Amino acid sequence: MDKVNLGAKLGTFDAIFSPKIVARLNDYKIAVVKTKGEFVWHKHDDTDDFFLVLKGRLRIQLRGSEDVVLEPGELFVVPKGVEHCPCADEETHILLIEPAGTPNTGDAGGPLTAQEETI
Amino acid sequence: MDKVNLGAKLGTFDAIFSPKIVARLNDYKIAVVKTKGEFVWHKHDDTDDFFLVLKGRLRIQLRGSEDVVLEPGELFVVPKGVEHCPCADEETHILLIEPAGTPNTGDAGGPLTAQEETI
Repeated sequence: MDKVNLGAKLGTFDAIFSPKIVARLNDYKIAVVKTKGEFVWHKHDDTDDFFLVLKGRLRIQLRGSEDVVLEPGELFVVPKGVEHCPCADEETHILLIEPAGTPNTGDAGGPLTAQEETI
Repeated sequence: MDKVNLGAKLGTFDAIFSPKIVARLNDYKIAVVKTKGEFVWHKHDDTDDFFLVLKGRLRIQLRGSEDVVLEPGELFVVPKGVEHCPCADEETHILLIEPAGTPNTGDAGGPLTAQEETI
């Protein structure tokens, strides 16, 4: 029954592209992640993907659509099955919401795939 | 495929205790709501209840536990079945996430029950 201060949680780690779970909502994970640079093109065939920018600026490249650029206080839900690649020029902090067990790299796998970790 | 600017959405209405859906994540609704004063004691037997404060200060009274007080950038998930009553001295803006169809007043019903509305 503890609240979560997102800034305080983000202050506990430095790793880029390494989501940290801070809360759970039913069978969903609520995570914070730090990004900088380009992630990897991937998609999630079974779920939408929620992004809310807390700090910085996130460009979400979308296969077949224009990029979506998010600043703090802006959110975007990538529809299931849509290939996307998040990208940030500066260090950018994001709130992510997905079903627990959803891999961060979707169908792409590879070295940026992170284990689920709760902080 | 449009992003959502939460501040801009909140600027389009004045009503208190009247959640407005701004996006969907699978079968969940993402809503913004303005609160001021005390809501109504209620619970949701089938779902947790996600609150993220965007502006102001929200006190969530919890039956049998200490109140949780949220400031901007702080979130809390009320576990399913836990009776709670949100309360705000000043106008407070919140991001809410729940399964679509979840009534804002849970099991309590009454005059503060809002229809689902997308903006």
